[in-house]
Amino acid sequence: PVWDLNADLGEGFGVWRLTEDDALLPLVTSANVACGFHAGDPSTMRRVCERAVEHGVRIGAQVSYRDLAGFGRRAIDMDPTELRDDLTYQLGALDAFARIAGDRVRYVKPHGALYNRVVADEEQAAAVVEAVHGYDPGLPVLGLPGSALLRRAAAAGLTCVGEAFADRAYTDAGTLVSRREPGAVLHDPEAVIHRTVRLATTGTLDSAHGVPVRVAARSICVHGDTPGAVDLIRGLRTALHEAGVTVVPFC
Amino acid sequence: PVWDLNADLGEGFGVWRLTEDDALLPLVTSANVACGFHAGDPSTMRRVCERAVEHGVRIGAQVSYRDLAGFGRRAIDMDPTELRDDLTYQLGALDAFARIAGDRVRYVKPHGALYNRVVADEEQAAAVVEAVHGYDPGLPVLGLPGSALLRRAAAAGLTCVGEAFADRAYTDAGTLVSRREPGAVLHDPEAVIHRTVRLATTGTLDSAHGVPVRVAARSICVHGDTPGAVDLIRGLRTALHEAGVTVVPFC
Amino acid sequence: PVWDLNADLGEGFGVWRLTEDDALLPLVTSANVACGFHAGDPSTMRRVCERAVEHGVRIGAQVSYRDLAGFGRRAIDMDPTELRDDLTYQLGALDAFARIAGDRVRYVKPHGALYNRVVADEEQAAAVVEAVHGYDPGLPVLGLPGSALLRRAAAAGLTCVGEAFADRAYTDAGTLVSRREPGAVLHDPEAVIHRTVRLATTGTLDSAHGVPVRVAARSICVHGDTPGAVDLIRGLRTALHEAGVTVVPFC
Amino acid sequence: PVWDLNADLGEGFGVWRLTEDDALLPLVTSANVACGFHAGDPSTMRRVCERAVEHGVRIGAQVSYRDLAGFGRRAIDMDPTELRDDLTYQLGALDAFARIAGDRVRYVKPHGALYNRVVADEEQAAAVVEAVHGYDPGLPVLGLPGSALLRRAAAAGLTCVGEAFADRAYTDAGTLVSRREPGAVLHDPEAVIHRTVRLATTGTLDSAHGVPVRVAARSICVHGDTPGAVDLIRGLRTALHEAGVTVVPFC
Repeated sequence: PVWDLNADLGEGFGVWRLTEDDALLPLVTSANVACGFHAGDPSTMRRVCERAVEHGVRIGAQVSYRDLAGFGRRAIDMDPTELRDDLTYQLGALDAFARIAGDRVRYVKPHGALYNRVVADEEQAAAVVEAVHGYDPGLPVLGLPGSALLRRAAAAGLTCVGEAFADRAYTDAGTLVSRREPGAVLHDPEAVIHRTVRLATTGTLDSAHGVPVRVAARSICVHGDTPGAVDLIRGLRTALHEAGVTVVPFC
Repeated sequence: PVWDLNADLGEGFGVWRLTEDDALLPLVTSANVACGFHAGDPSTMRRVCERAVEHGVRIGAQVSYRDLAGFGRRAIDMDPTELRDDLTYQLGALDAFARIAGDRVRYVKPHGALYNRVVADEEQAAAVVEAVHGYDPGLPVLGLPGSALLRRAAAAGLTCVGEAFADRAYTDAGTLVSRREPGAVLHDPEAVIHRTVRLATTGTLDSAHGVPVRVAARSICVHGDTPGAVDLIRGLRTALHEAGVTVVPFC
Repeated sequence: PVWDLNADLGEGFGVWRLTEDDALLPLVTSANVACGFHAGDPSTMRRVCERAVEHGVRIGAQVSYRDLAGFGRRAIDMDPTELRDDLTYQLGALDAFARIAGDRVRYVKPHGALYNRVVADEEQAAAVVEAVHGYDPGLPVLGLPGSALLRRAAAAGLTCVGEAFADRAYTDAGTLVSRREPGAVLHDPEAVIHRTVRLATTGTLDSAHGVPVRVAARSICVHGDTPGAVDLIRGLRTALHEAGVTVVPFC
Repeated sequence: PVWDLNADLGEGFGVWRLTEDDALLPLVTSANVACGFHAGDPSTMRRVCERAVEHGVRIGAQVSYRDLAGFGRRAIDMDPTELRDDLTYQLGALDAFARIAGDRVRYVKPHGALYNRVVADEEQAAAVVEAVHGYDPGLPVLGLPGSALLRRAAAAGLTCVGEAFADRAYTDAGTLVSRREPGAVLHDPEAVIHRTVRLATTGTLDSAHGVPVRVAARSICVHGDTPGAVDLIRGLRTALHEAGVTVVPFC
């Protein structure tokens, strides 16, 4: 089996840092790079793009609502046309750094509240699709399997890539348990590695109630902003390798 | 004689407007489009790019310090590397809209305090040159004749285009009279048109002291944010036409 | 009958202007002053406070979501505690200018999307009440009659002041017709003046369907950001005076 | 001898953290609290004020240029009137949280590039003084001994408090060695503690060239954003105590 490993990177702003970009880049195959609206000052964007190219990691545009104060975690009711234009702006800005680094933006993944919103909000999902399609119809979209975003992206002819979350609990229906519920995030590294290997080798994982669910994913999302994240991801890569899983970019 | 006519456009932000973009676009040949750091929200950038392409007007990136509150009119002592990256970011963002509109960014012109700063500040001038060269070494730079910016841009192999100001007083040395001094800005439309036609046909204008000075320019900058600006520019175009001056983009 | 006349003021930011503050201040009795989150740079806040005090106009804090790009017209799903703190911040900032001008903030009115959100959103309404109560339990809240905000404010012991809109259509139930529907905003100055005088003298106005509705208001909100607004408000004041209505601040 | 110990606190923004506020508050006597322009979101400001009051720590307003992207470390050439108003805005905002916490802003200290600028820039120094004086002429100003700021503040009748830096090298003239020069910042905890105790007990420390210089200070500034800062400050307090130095707020 062949999988991609993606992580959010470049999530600092100015003097502030959040993600351990240098430690994570050798471990993942796709980098969701913050584009300045929820995080990601221009110099950080440039550095992450340069390092990503050095490591052969694909550069994805992690586009967001304009919300530095809320880190893009606040859903915003905004005009879909303005949302589309905000995303185009971010795409172009990151692409400048990706191209200067010798590559280009290879895919798009919405961040935070926008990611969650376009699971069901058809208008905003359409705005994301329009932004990607208008910029480059060859750009894949990385998102939640079954989301309005991926459905609309597919309908528009975009390549869709589903992702699974290594450290999140799933419902019996194969969707994510809300972060507001207890047990939504898994903290035991061994358990996270074990279920991820199972997913990677069988396409299946157990829901929070122990029901096996299939997840239509080609990429595994790991989180780099938690203590011990780097060690966990390193352990995960080793375990995937030992289980015969090939970890390569999806694009 | 052949001249370009450039103006700052898209200088609104969100609900606020400053420049009469729709009225100005049929009158100029080059549009210096605000890129979001001193003005220019993404939807405004998109609209100005679309209209510019419709009118055959060239799209220039009017890059700026990050300064919405001061409209980019405050000089900022910042790390040249961070400045360069801020400009790259703006360039990429505007280029996205220019390309979606069917063209691309054709030149770069610094805005406001940055424009004035790079007349003499070698470090910041070098940062602008690096940003342009890194993004696309084929992009011309529009600036003040004799400035550090144009000198460094030429040394780096970039195409340099000098501009003259229709409504600004000049010193005997051929530089601009500081805005802080009385008479720095000319308000009489007839006088502005008269001196601009003379400049366009002879390359010469009178300094504030009445001394004829030569200005090494290929483009004339007009200001669209003053009352009566649209009428003045319309009158200027007629007068230039009658004087046998051809008004076409410089690139 | 005695009424207050309130308008949004100080809605510029930096170089941008929106409201004709100097023309409106002699005409209204209460100024809803933007506090920097949707509009209102500090120098504008200071000037509006100074002019308001000169004219005996009460200074109200028009608090908003943090949203310069959307002018506070985008509802934001945010943590109520963070919302409360954002509002406290704005209250304190405006109060500094009000006190330097010789008065103090006299009341609070939410702006734009927040105003509409707290008509029904109990959590965010509670956050507004907490912010006002924490800052000064003697501060009145100006809002929509029947809103969750005014209900909760009253329950917390705050003084509540209802307002009616001179230029908005009402439903038969006495609520505002949504701006998305045709006819929601009245544009005919004579009609606006006529219905406002009737409201001021009888407490009643006709709904969009011609049904008389009573509005529990002590203040009339006029809008200063539309063409002809100043003339309309001047005409309204004359008409109110002739109808025997006294126009004075509500606090 | 009696000294005050001050540190910059609350220097996070949204999801980002910089200073270990909870660990530092029990160790210092004066907290320079970021007010939102270089750092310091409203919820952080509220929390720091609450904790400061719990620990009997004085709340100071660390006012700054509007510069989140540069953390207030970029000098900005701006209109002094606008600077004054920006500072008033920050003062009022922080005071709201200080008062809700049961105290009030007790002093003002400029941050970063503004701190350095008003050592010599008379216009900007005057703007700071005007802001403080206009807000409350009883508020002390904390700054560099010999600076234009303290000189002008004294002339305006404000209380002036000089500070010394525990971890910075001094010139023979008693000013700070520029951060651009090697050795400007002292990193050896023992050396820092030793020289600070000597300063606190004798009013004297050795310049970078070993020349004893007197520093006219009543407060010692410690930095909380470096690794090991909390341990160093804890050690410093113990050493000061053992040397018979009383550490209490200066106001």
